[in-house]
Amino acid sequence: MKKGFVLWLTGLPGSGKTTLSYILKDHLSAKGLPVEVLDGDEVRKNLSPNLGFTKEDREIHAKRVAYVSQLLARNGVNVIVALISPYRSFRDNAREMIGEGFFEIWIKATPETCRQRDPKGLYKKASAGQINNLTGIQDPYEEPLNPDLIVDTEAKNIDDSAELIISLLKRKHYLN
Amino acid sequence: MKKGFVLWLTGLPGSGKTTLSYILKDHLSAKGLPVEVLDGDEVRKNLSPNLGFTKEDREIHAKRVAYVSQLLARNGVNVIVALISPYRSFRDNAREMIGEGFFEIWIKATPETCRQRDPKGLYKKASAGQINNLTGIQDPYEEPLNPDLIVDTEAKNIDDSAELIISLLKRKHYLN
Repeated sequence: MKKGFVLWLTGLPGSGKTTLSYILKDHLSAKGLPVEVLDGDEVRKNLSPNLGFTKEDREIHAKRVAYVSQLLARNGVNVIVALISPYRSFRDNAREMIGEGFFEIWIKATPETCRQRDPKGLYKKASAGQINNLTGIQDPYEEPLNPDLIVDTEAKNIDDSAELIISLLKRKHYLN
Repeated sequence: MKKGFVLWLTGLPGSGKTTLSYILKDHLSAKGLPVEVLDGDEVRKNLSPNLGFTKEDREIHAKRVAYVSQLLARNGVNVIVALISPYRSFRDNAREMIGEGFFEIWIKATPETCRQRDPKGLYKKASAGQINNLTGIQDPYEEPLNPDLIVDTEAKNIDDSAELIISLLKRKHYLN
């Protein structure tokens, strides 16, 4: 059995992580690969309903996501993680836990663009003072220094963005 | 892709859940099946390090184990859970989450036998007053009313006990 890969999509809220994840999942599932999307918000409901968005709580949550990714990947299931994971140490920890097959992919868009997209209404809430820890506005986002791939979702549309990630998997021999 | 099965081993501390889990894992892995053991104590370290052993904390932990089992099983990975899971509602919830392929297996031994075995020294600690919530001694264990299988580890040795579970998988057409 071949170990699965873990595509760890990091980026600001509204950068396109979740949308890309499900496009990739459809693409890979159509090729017959087992794929699980671990979307930060969804996983929170199940594993971390009592955690908030302090750095400490975000770290605990990111570790849980990394642990579940590890369990899936070592059993041959491919994983797509969509998680802001704003601190380098969180992503480095995930890479260390998972090892081979881990790919840090920076889904990149400027805060201004993300604010305009605002798919979950978070930027609006932050402006209204209803939340106080939105990454990129009120909380820091540590940009990846050496990601396996940068996907600029302002420069490319969503299909071309997905294609970039597919190409990475081909180069790494996870796809033909 | 065939959905994986989930063998949910419930029983008192010292009943033999962990030992049986790893024997079963070896047996199934040797047949080429992907298998993950979710041992309650191990999973706690990763998913629930801050939880204790109140009913509420045990319930949160059991739900996390059920969620991870569900993720693995729906991707074709077979799961062996070794978790005291002392309340019927916890096990019923897991069965509901996982659905087809879920098997509740009661690993049965009397509290006296478990106390004599005491593989983790928990009964000794309870006697010394160092812990105050040991299932079967200080905390309740709700015996399964309608488990898929009862494995009496006093009446049978460990290999025969494992064989009973293998036979269940054969009857349910998960093994040839």
